[in-house]
Amino acid sequence: MSHWLEDLKKAIPEERILTSLADRHSYSFDASFGEYLPEAVVQAKEKEEVVAVFKLANRYRVPVYPRGSGTCLSGGPLPVHGGIVLDMSQWPKKIDHRPDDLTVTVTPSVLTARINEEAEKHGLMYAPDPSSAHVATIGGNLAENSGGPRGLKYGVTKDHVIGLEVITPEGEVMRTGGGTIKNVTGYDLTKLIVGSEGTLGVIVEATLKLMPKPPAVQTMMVAFDHVRKAGEAISKTLTSGILPSKMEFMDQACIVAVENFKPVGLPVHAAAVVILELDGHPETLKVERKLVEEIMERIGAKEVIIPKTEEEAENIWHARKQVSPAIAKIKPTKVSEDATVPRSKIPDFMDRLQEIKEKFDVEVVAFGHAGDGNLHPNVLCDKRNKEEMKRVELAVEEMFKAAIELGGTLSGEHGIGTMKAPFMELELGEVGVDMMKRLKDAWDPNHIMNPGKIFVEKGQRLVLTDE
Amino acid sequence: MSHWLEDLKKAIPEERILTSLADRHSYSFDASFGEYLPEAVVQAKEKEEVVAVFKLANRYRVPVYPRGSGTCLSGGPLPVHGGIVLDMSQWPKKIDHRPDDLTVTVTPSVLTARINEEAEKHGLMYAPDPSSAHVATIGGNLAENSGGPRGLKYGVTKDHVIGLEVITPEGEVMRTGGGTIKNVTGYDLTKLIVGSEGTLGVIVEATLKLMPKPPAVQTMMVAFDHVRKAGEAISKTLTSGILPSKMEFMDQACIVAVENFKPVGLPVHAAAVVILELDGHPETLKVERKLVEEIMERIGAKEVIIPKTEEEAENIWHARKQVSPAIAKIKPTKVSEDATVPRSKIPDFMDRLQEIKEKFDVEVVAFGHAGDGNLHPNVLCDKRNKEEMKRVELAVEEMFKAAIELGGTLSGEHGIGTMKAPFMELELGEVGVDMMKRLKDAWDPNHIMNPGKIFVEKGQRLVLTDE
Repeated sequence: MSHWLEDLKKAIPEERILTSLADRHSYSFDASFGEYLPEAVVQAKEKEEVVAVFKLANRYRVPVYPRGSGTCLSGGPLPVHGGIVLDMSQWPKKIDHRPDDLTVTVTPSVLTARINEEAEKHGLMYAPDPSSAHVATIGGNLAENSGGPRGLKYGVTKDHVIGLEVITPEGEVMRTGGGTIKNVTGYDLTKLIVGSEGTLGVIVEATLKLMPKPPAVQTMMVAFDHVRKAGEAISKTLTSGILPSKMEFMDQACIVAVENFKPVGLPVHAAAVVILELDGHPETLKVERKLVEEIMERIGAKEVIIPKTEEEAENIWHARKQVSPAIAKIKPTKVSEDATVPRSKIPDFMDRLQEIKEKFDVEVVAFGHAGDGNLHPNVLCDKRNKEEMKRVELAVEEMFKAAIELGGTLSGEHGIGTMKAPFMELELGEVGVDMMKRLKDAWDPNHIMNPGKIFVEKGQRLVLTDE
Repeated sequence: MSHWLEDLKKAIPEERILTSLADRHSYSFDASFGEYLPEAVVQAKEKEEVVAVFKLANRYRVPVYPRGSGTCLSGGPLPVHGGIVLDMSQWPKKIDHRPDDLTVTVTPSVLTARINEEAEKHGLMYAPDPSSAHVATIGGNLAENSGGPRGLKYGVTKDHVIGLEVITPEGEVMRTGGGTIKNVTGYDLTKLIVGSEGTLGVIVEATLKLMPKPPAVQTMMVAFDHVRKAGEAISKTLTSGILPSKMEFMDQACIVAVENFKPVGLPVHAAAVVILELDGHPETLKVERKLVEEIMERIGAKEVIIPKTEEEAENIWHARKQVSPAIAKIKPTKVSEDATVPRSKIPDFMDRLQEIKEKFDVEVVAFGHAGDGNLHPNVLCDKRNKEEMKRVELAVEEMFKAAIELGGTLSGEHGIGTMKAPFMELELGEVGVDMMKRLKDAWDPNHIMNPGKIFVEKGQRLVLTDE
């Protein structure tokens, strides 16, 4: 190792190369499972530095693990084979708005929420709104193709990226796409790289689409006495001609957890709630709100709650955001899944979750972006309890299988990373995995770029402990 | 050749293998330039047949050229190296709607317009609406990632594809994506294959997103006495908080051509018109229509025409659809370009077109999807006139350069094919082209899949004659 470290010190100012055990420890984990010590951390601030790191990595066959703020739920930034963690969070933050083009160009270290805050000053909106937007960098969002509640109407991160500047695994600077909304010049490298989990290159600049900010929004919260009814409410609404901007689901356990955590007056006796946001012109909202109320009554909703003030509406959305921290208080370990099914299969998937819960005697709570079939079943457990964790691992495995059997996918927005690599072939089959591997091999012949992610390694299986 | 043809006859019913000169001639061209005789045509109807053709093609190194209905404007289906044309237009037509999922699964031979017609029966919409929708197959649209007027608000074909079944160049059956709206399981092969111009495989099934059909639409036609003002009108509208579903541009030459072709009462004295469509709730449309009228007055529009009846509105859109056939009457040859620029650069691009027109003394008319910066400058000429065509070729080359200098792209929606391959590096640089080539080589090691497209071949240059 020593000689590549010597070379590294020639390319990067020494104060931005971290090698102390303490520093390396703080880069050894993310928001998923497992801890892996890197040999060194580079806090990159310039393209030339990234190029130098990759050239060196190829020369010495040292793995490089790009990282934003490390909020990843699937292990994307984990340095599973040691080597170098490339910390992109210290990169100079730039947000260059071009309101007349309805675009913005950003550097990877910018926090996602900042992009939308800036856009709103121009009456525009950056649509993707992952719950982590205030702590996650856009670089991480791009690597993982993050979603969020507004994905229902506006799509996920990838749908809003039109151009990238990327350093390839071999250290070449490449531009993909550009500043135009439409572009069919050759293969769509932009959409291939966004969501590739840092395995095909490092993004150093991105041009994103903006859109006119809707003039008004209307929040509604609907309570149900049966979980299945909530599922029906979702598909009935979506086929009524209305496309809400958000349509979120919380089961009773989540409602109660939030109320115990920070009370906002959620209907704790409901089996589930669906929280909607309609956006558009105020006149339209009046009409659509009435239509939604009718649908909910027809289905037999327990209660339709319309916030009277903006503050009340904000409280409801704040409550939704509190679900994750709130349920984390119930038990020490939280396994957050994001298996996704076709919209009409949401009620069936909810039934399957109930079965799995009973079969493996595990605690499962569910919430998430039900409007696009993207539920977040969370298994609450204690990773120090080996016996329990075995049951949890089997339960999670069965959730994946259930989602795929219902025509769904392993991951709707969290990514594969280390967590789901063992299950790729289950969904994609041998050919699908092989064709993906070919792309990886063609771009990263020495496998230095975030190795150990997406593609399963020999003997790798789902492990939800940190050992 | 003879022995591979013998093998072919073992795999495909003989009546669907065409080898007569007449048949081969009818598959030797598309809607672009150049004629190339294939050695044989296979009218495939089953996956197994496509698999057999590809296995054979790899064994004998015979190129395979997939084809829908041959309406391509960039040479996508042209059998430039002979070999086999794989005619997918005879494939059994299936449209399987899943209204509760807001998806539809189709076979490649279905005409694009049919998909939307079917969706409307469920109160839904398939958004992409290329002008060729009534004659082009969805298979061709997927290969080329076709656009259309509604792309302004709803995006292009790729934005509406969630899953594919594909036969790889080596004859393996592969599924990508699936039936869910969100999916981040591994690399996004769906969006890589859509728009890859039939160079990475043949699509035999696709699952497409549907959306609620907007309850109402409002058409408006605005006339200007200066082309540049029309350009300003477009960017001012798009930054006003309104996102029209369509925003089309026609210059005077196009207006006059349409009126001479099939009179519908367009303002022939205007330098240009912008035709808008707003969609949404009727109450919203009233408000937005007023806002658009105000914007147009501020800019100094000559006239704002609001159709009084649905029929009048349809006539306006019919007129827009007639531009292409109408201008084709002016001169025997029509070179249709689709270079695209950032929205704010539309007025500059219009100025550059004027300069190019004068510099090379060529006849250029312009229309198209100005709302997303995607103009269609058309050069009207006579391909029998060698001297004129030389000037046309130079003019077109300069249009490409102008678009790229303005931060734009060679192609917004027509694709690269044979027409623009020589200019790829101009936009993408060496690294960009190399990284695309690596993908191609990794998936099609024997280069049997639509060779001679996208990537420039030795000595290849822009040629707008059929010799």
